[in-house]
Amino acid sequence: MNIKAPRGTVDILPETVKKWQYVERVIKNVSDRFHYNEIRTPLFEHTELFQRGVGDSTDIVQKEMYTFEDRGGRSLTLRPEGTASVVRAFVENKLFGSPIQPVKLFYFGQMFRYERPQKGRMRQLNQFGVEAMGSPDPAVDAEVIDLAMTCYKELGLKSLKLVINSLGDSESRNDYREALVQHFTPHKEELCNDCQTRLTQNPLRILDCKKDHDHPAMKTAPSMLDFLNEDSRSYFEKVKTYLDKMNIPYTVDKNLVRGLDYYNHTAFEIMSEADGFGSITTLAGGGRYNGLVEDLGGPNTPGIGFGMGIERLLMALEAENITLPVENTLDCFVVAFGDEAVLESVNLVHTLRENGIQVDKDYQDRKMKGQFKAADRVNARFVLVLGDQEVEDNVINVKDMETGNQTEVAISNIVSYMQSIMKEEGGIL
Amino acid sequence: MNIKAPRGTVDILPETVKKWQYVERVIKNVSDRFHYNEIRTPLFEHTELFQRGVGDSTDIVQKEMYTFEDRGGRSLTLRPEGTASVVRAFVENKLFGSPIQPVKLFYFGQMFRYERPQKGRMRQLNQFGVEAMGSPDPAVDAEVIDLAMTCYKELGLKSLKLVINSLGDSESRNDYREALVQHFTPHKEELCNDCQTRLTQNPLRILDCKKDHDHPAMKTAPSMLDFLNEDSRSYFEKVKTYLDKMNIPYTVDKNLVRGLDYYNHTAFEIMSEADGFGSITTLAGGGRYNGLVEDLGGPNTPGIGFGMGIERLLMALEAENITLPVENTLDCFVVAFGDEAVLESVNLVHTLRENGIQVDKDYQDRKMKGQFKAADRVNARFVLVLGDQEVEDNVINVKDMETGNQTEVAISNIVSYMQSIMKEEGGIL
Repeated sequence: MNIKAPRGTVDILPETVKKWQYVERVIKNVSDRFHYNEIRTPLFEHTELFQRGVGDSTDIVQKEMYTFEDRGGRSLTLRPEGTASVVRAFVENKLFGSPIQPVKLFYFGQMFRYERPQKGRMRQLNQFGVEAMGSPDPAVDAEVIDLAMTCYKELGLKSLKLVINSLGDSESRNDYREALVQHFTPHKEELCNDCQTRLTQNPLRILDCKKDHDHPAMKTAPSMLDFLNEDSRSYFEKVKTYLDKMNIPYTVDKNLVRGLDYYNHTAFEIMSEADGFGSITTLAGGGRYNGLVEDLGGPNTPGIGFGMGIERLLMALEAENITLPVENTLDCFVVAFGDEAVLESVNLVHTLRENGIQVDKDYQDRKMKGQFKAADRVNARFVLVLGDQEVEDNVINVKDMETGNQTEVAISNIVSYMQSIMKEEGGIL
Repeated sequence: MNIKAPRGTVDILPETVKKWQYVERVIKNVSDRFHYNEIRTPLFEHTELFQRGVGDSTDIVQKEMYTFEDRGGRSLTLRPEGTASVVRAFVENKLFGSPIQPVKLFYFGQMFRYERPQKGRMRQLNQFGVEAMGSPDPAVDAEVIDLAMTCYKELGLKSLKLVINSLGDSESRNDYREALVQHFTPHKEELCNDCQTRLTQNPLRILDCKKDHDHPAMKTAPSMLDFLNEDSRSYFEKVKTYLDKMNIPYTVDKNLVRGLDYYNHTAFEIMSEADGFGSITTLAGGGRYNGLVEDLGGPNTPGIGFGMGIERLLMALEAENITLPVENTLDCFVVAFGDEAVLESVNLVHTLRENGIQVDKDYQDRKMKGQFKAADRVNARFVLVLGDQEVEDNVINVKDMETGNQTEVAISNIVSYMQSIMKEEGGIL
């Protein structure tokens, strides 16, 4: 009997969780400063939501979703991405009526995609994402890009590349779509099966096809940027002006279309350029989705957001050899020997913890030497020694594991004594 | 087109998330002090794990699991509880070989149970839980109970009831099982269908049947405590002695058997006794499971843990009228008018955020009055006013929203000025 974690999933063990906690703390702190508030939506949704909200013709919906029927016969799907759920929640909870506009939200959570697992691509993956709904201001586009870049910078990443593009408003996009159909139709038979379907369903998606990437018609394809109408052009110019103003460097890539159906105007991706990062370099991607709220039953509301992979972020930190300031120490460890002392130690540990001290004791019936060894293994800063003699004398022997100094402290004073030395150490919780 | 969250699930909106964040911070802090480390396991597992690790005859496995086939034909199940996954991870990652023993773990996460939704019972629910594996010391039983109680106490709960029982070791439990079969067999026809099955599969479970709760044979049923052998009795005595030593009050309930198959020795539940808490009063439950690690393919390893519902914890706080110290303020809001000032404000906001200040601005093209109103709505502590004249003069007008005082600050000094006043406010992130 040996059951493993399902393929494409992993356990995150304590050593590694500490890195996750640190990364989440930094990102949460950045989100606070940008005045984005956390929302938590269910892990699964009605399948229809993603068909509608991500797009029926996308790879995600067609090939990668974990879809199942519950015991009541409803079709449910584990969320493959975060935006559709947040927009559904925005509509269902009528957040469009909030007096505070735009509504700026962030989320952390697991996403699920049935793909072939490989480095940087798991079936259960973790994303941080933000959604700002209710403002058509290009300064919001710049703000969410700034937020993503700030998260990376504060974690120490340096080799980053920000790529932006404009997909224009629906008028510009329709004109462009027609031009693409005209351009690719003569080559239809040379394109892959998926792209042949895309040609009628969503020709923009041809531009980021991995199979047809090197087809000569790709290089000569018309550029979206040439089809932007006046409004769309001016919108994109403002986004760029704001990025310039904040000194955030970027590259315009006219082929950046993103994999999802719902984007318009600004689309962006952030890539790692670190050596040895591997072939999947995208760390985060997002864009504006002005029609999505209405598509999902809400009033006409502009929106923009991005999703950021946490696994890939950790890979990027590793590729840049960044060590996160993660601690692995313990304030103190109680060493007890003798029946009375062991009984007393249970309450001592309880009392110290109650008063803010991080403390552990032996639970393996170890001899004194073994207990000291255990204290060493967990990097205890202080060891509190308690034998039956000490219990009788109402004292505890406190050993500083850095200096080796020992001090006898009255049991009745041990809490305040430990609090004061841990405060000096900066270690009190 | 109006898609709702699936039945039995809810969105946790920003106002409420702040309470969750606070609760999680306190619990995480308590876990740190008790030296438990976080582990994160996948949201779904091979179905077999729960059949084996929770128990084929339990209600959870028989009626309540979200089970589905993935696109590769594997049977997967959304986790209905946390212990089986953590034990699976303990075995798969060979944590039994860790030099630090016992291995003390905690987790936060969503669990999934297909039940009829009602107050305090959701289909997607959130649990905090701990598992301590590798020590047979009854002091660990007392420690995990202490940990749970400490979480509740530090959040302010007062009306708590801790109930404990011993299910004994396997020898004691076998003797008891026989006695129960003998006792209930004459009444078999009077029991509910489930209990008739339980009589052969797991007679202990009859004792916590809700349907047969008032059957006269329940009251006269033999008590587990009379069947404890010497070892089991002495084990239970030690657990009680440690709880007494720590001044943790408890009640022994001989009918407490818990719904899961794997428990032995100590079983416990913590209930809310607050008025108006509702009919489902259990806040947390757990127990020892010395055979489970071996059942799941690991070496013979003792273990104990508990699971704590976060939704119910929040309900209990509400029932006791406890207000969590959750803040809803903003350090500062930038009010800008005039084209130059608006452009400048984008960079001002960026720079302040970069330097630890929490700040927002208008993105709705509001007039000055509307911007001040927006600043008010988000409880901005300070408002930074920037018009084209200020841009020309390289100054910003800082308005203290508590006193109404206004100060003109040079743009080049604004970061250090805001940092120093926010430090005074204790608000710097």
